[in-house]
Amino acid sequence: MKLMQLYASLKSDLQTIEDTLAKSVSSDLPLLNESAQHLLKAGGKRLRPVIVLLGGKFGEYSLDRIKPIAAALELIHMASLVHDDVIDDAATRRGQPTVKAKWDNRIAMFTGDYINGKALVVASELGDPRIHQILSGAIVQMCIGEMEQIRDFFNTDQSVRNYLLRIRRKTALLIAISCQLGAIAAGAAPAVSNALYRFGYQVGMAFQITDDLLDICGTEKKIGKPPGSDLRQGNITLPVLHALNEPAIRDELLREIARIRDGEGAADSAAAVKLVRASGGIRASELLADRFKDKALRELEKLPNIPARKNLADIAKFVAQRSY
Amino acid sequence: MKLMQLYASLKSDLQTIEDTLAKSVSSDLPLLNESAQHLLKAGGKRLRPVIVLLGGKFGEYSLDRIKPIAAALELIHMASLVHDDVIDDAATRRGQPTVKAKWDNRIAMFTGDYINGKALVVASELGDPRIHQILSGAIVQMCIGEMEQIRDFFNTDQSVRNYLLRIRRKTALLIAISCQLGAIAAGAAPAVSNALYRFGYQVGMAFQITDDLLDICGTEKKIGKPPGSDLRQGNITLPVLHALNEPAIRDELLREIARIRDGEGAADSAAAVKLVRASGGIRASELLADRFKDKALRELEKLPNIPARKNLADIAKFVAQRSY
Repeated sequence: MKLMQLYASLKSDLQTIEDTLAKSVSSDLPLLNESAQHLLKAGGKRLRPVIVLLGGKFGEYSLDRIKPIAAALELIHMASLVHDDVIDDAATRRGQPTVKAKWDNRIAMFTGDYINGKALVVASELGDPRIHQILSGAIVQMCIGEMEQIRDFFNTDQSVRNYLLRIRRKTALLIAISCQLGAIAAGAAPAVSNALYRFGYQVGMAFQITDDLLDICGTEKKIGKPPGSDLRQGNITLPVLHALNEPAIRDELLREIARIRDGEGAADSAAAVKLVRASGGIRASELLADRFKDKALRELEKLPNIPARKNLADIAKFVAQRSY
Repeated sequence: MKLMQLYASLKSDLQTIEDTLAKSVSSDLPLLNESAQHLLKAGGKRLRPVIVLLGGKFGEYSLDRIKPIAAALELIHMASLVHDDVIDDAATRRGQPTVKAKWDNRIAMFTGDYINGKALVVASELGDPRIHQILSGAIVQMCIGEMEQIRDFFNTDQSVRNYLLRIRRKTALLIAISCQLGAIAAGAAPAVSNALYRFGYQVGMAFQITDDLLDICGTEKKIGKPPGSDLRQGNITLPVLHALNEPAIRDELLREIARIRDGEGAADSAAAVKLVRASGGIRASELLADRFKDKALRELEKLPNIPARKNLADIAKFVAQRSY
């Protein structure tokens, strides 16, 4: 399943969102304009706007009402990528130099702030206070997730529960509210928007675990960055946590992680990646991603059987899809 | 006039705001908690909450309705200070080590993001979409102001108009909407809230020009940081722009500024500060600050003569007050 097939039915609406995004990040300030436009052109899957649009199909679908939400969610996501790059010392994202690499940390920080602000400006068009409560609440949780990630850098003693709480805040919550807010903007009943929230949450968890697996198992060509990037920055993900629980691997992996930490970004993570790949952590993580995907699919069964339900199911299957 | 006298009539309401602020920035995450609480304890004049409260006196004053706005405005201001410190490489603010100096840039960035998010959460309690439109619009303008400041670092060819536009976005706008939103939350008529917006704008301009003057003319004891900090980071302020227009000073000042720029933060700005102090730029800037203050006072005359009007007049006089 290619995402493009999935998106075919939404093509014209997505183009409208794309135009709204381009308009939202345009300004008279060349410095800001260039950095924001650069980010926009680097693309991305536009997963969140698609989910907002599909969520909207469960109510009275009106592109005019759903458009600001879809754009706002993608802008919040974009802003978090920009700020993530400041943290990650990442030089490329999606195969393109990051805003931070092209300009510097300060520009990246204010570009992120600006895009976040624009998200709220766009969302405020709707004049629905619930939308603001949900959006601002999610932004706060995302920040906590980012801080938790910093706190947990190179912490090899963290629990799986710790990891799950972190990715919940960092990733799953924004996807959950994307689905929920699409439905709310379309005036769907609370039972429907709540089920869509839970669906989005499960999809988000499956998505992040799969993303973390790809960082270990993928090739540079496939993932657009060298594998083991997470480990190099100190981010201990699920497959690594599982690998650390294997006595035959633990000590060597701990030594490798300590070496990476002490190398302060200069050390190679290839040996650690090799150890994790050879561990049962890959299979265990795949199983958990699939469990979240299955829960997402079951959540959908409670919803009316409209075409958008099939599309959401395809998205759940897509995000948990692995080819490495 | 001491600010404390001015605040006396608002003392109990300000304590409530202080409690709301403390609650807003508390979290279960020690890393975040400590950095945010640290910032809170460093204090500050709480100028924006005071202005919100006074704005609210022009409508049906209800602390319950005005409290979220007052807290939100101070939180947005605090977030901008945290992000400013990332930019400024500032080691102290208000005599205390900055969040950035105590932790690092990444923590400072996400602390700022978190506080900004909390501001919006607090403001969303009111359920008034206009408030969100005004708040998010102001956040966007502040970001543009920050980017403009980066763009204009060490640019000795910028116009006074350029400087004024920058401080309008960076400072004046937030004070303007503080006054306006207080009135809006209290249900004041648009003519009143608009006049208060204009008052706040003029006060904000007078405030920033005076602040920029203090950085040149103040002592380290008085301003809590070494004078000439703005110049060291490349921020060319109004007195410097005026001094650059004086033929007897221009060439030497240009050489000093180039030396500071090439020293990348290590160079001393004392010689440049001395040149500016001896120039007519001080007097010209004082005159402009006073003009903004006078415009602010004239704006007040259009408003009903309630006690809060006198308080706002005192604030206008206070912010333009100089002792160096």
